[in-house]
Amino acid sequence: MSEHRYAAKDTECIGYVARPEGAGPHPVVIVTPAYHGLDDFARDKADWLASLGYIGFAVDYYGEGRTARDDAQASEMMHVLQNDRATLLTRMQAALDTARTLPDADKSNIAAIGFCFGGKAVLDLARSGATLSGVVPFHGIFDAPPSGCSKMNTSVLVLHGWDDPLATPDQAVGLAKELTEHCDDWQMLAFGHTSHAFTNPAAQSPDAGMAYAASSNDRSFDAMQTFLKERFAQS
Amino acid sequence: MSEHRYAAKDTECIGYVARPEGAGPHPVVIVTPAYHGLDDFARDKADWLASLGYIGFAVDYYGEGRTARDDAQASEMMHVLQNDRATLLTRMQAALDTARTLPDADKSNIAAIGFCFGGKAVLDLARSGATLSGVVPFHGIFDAPPSGCSKMNTSVLVLHGWDDPLATPDQAVGLAKELTEHCDDWQMLAFGHTSHAFTNPAAQSPDAGMAYAASSNDRSFDAMQTFLKERFAQS
Repeated sequence: MSEHRYAAKDTECIGYVARPEGAGPHPVVIVTPAYHGLDDFARDKADWLASLGYIGFAVDYYGEGRTARDDAQASEMMHVLQNDRATLLTRMQAALDTARTLPDADKSNIAAIGFCFGGKAVLDLARSGATLSGVVPFHGIFDAPPSGCSKMNTSVLVLHGWDDPLATPDQAVGLAKELTEHCDDWQMLAFGHTSHAFTNPAAQSPDAGMAYAASSNDRSFDAMQTFLKERFAQS
Repeated sequence: MSEHRYAAKDTECIGYVARPEGAGPHPVVIVTPAYHGLDDFARDKADWLASLGYIGFAVDYYGEGRTARDDAQASEMMHVLQNDRATLLTRMQAALDTARTLPDADKSNIAAIGFCFGGKAVLDLARSGATLSGVVPFHGIFDAPPSGCSKMNTSVLVLHGWDDPLATPDQAVGLAKELTEHCDDWQMLAFGHTSHAFTNPAAQSPDAGMAYAASSNDRSFDAMQTFLKERFAQS
């Protein structure tokens, strides 16, 4: 469990690596944080993935290890990258390149999961045509970047709260259309009565459509585990 | 593994029961066939469910053990019940009542799965307000019956091929809306590049949107197993 520094062009990024016990090589799961940046939530997921036998690599898409002190600042930081999807992609590509060079990494078995804005980030990585074993956005945001979508070289599992105000049914249908055009292997698991941020116990604003949902949380991580096992067994 | 006769009002139905090894009580999984009626496909699923520790009960919604000799006759038989959803429901309610009285049945743990028109039949059973642990339509048809939908008393997992011409994206969104209104616990798992009848190895008409899809088949039964285990552990 340690800090891991890597470069994304001119930006130094400060990630976090959690390692499983036992001899490698181990598959790597890139953990892409929500809009606050690399926080305890993301580190905990990396630790948990290590307990499953994977290298958990929580990444720093803001650079320099920056995290937000509150939701307002997180929104500001996110909007910079939302308006500069090329830089967001550069940061994700650097994370993927770094994942491949981690000690004991199984280079042929790298997946990326992401939460909220991190779900958008991993979808953008898939849209770039990057080769991955799997990509799993949790309550991700679905709008495609201005650069559009290349032929995807990964399987995709979308884990989605049907009541998410940031990803409406129309937008979910739109993502399904985009995936049908560009991704040979995709699935979407939608949870009823489930809002945005359903995996985050700190999300407690149901009226704003942001709320932890215990059963959807548990089901989404079960589905992720089944998916990763299946994908990592393919190579 | 044996024939099981039961009554649905004035109609004698001839189902098929497969029993697990070991002492009961055992949860019961009602297997609702596709539009050919109770055939080897449904019996095989009942047998497989018995190997998982459940009583598999394949049901006879046409009555008198009738099955179709070909697709054309199956369509005719199906349309009779499609135009008489009250009778379809009566047959499903009789199947559920029968499931509860099977020797060694765990009455508090009964689920219903269904394929194609059988997916519609299990949704109709859920819509009637019947109490079940879970309902799982595989490539089901989504139109609600004229009687509408009562408050559901079951969890629902919809397993859906996104390219199914008999259940379009608009209809999937419509079902999600109906479930949101009437069902407290629902999920939908949609598979990309997947047509109608994706669990049926005999379905080989991709141009007509009816085709077996090995990975979606495997994933759908994995998801069903996870769901049944979860639901049966609740009571």
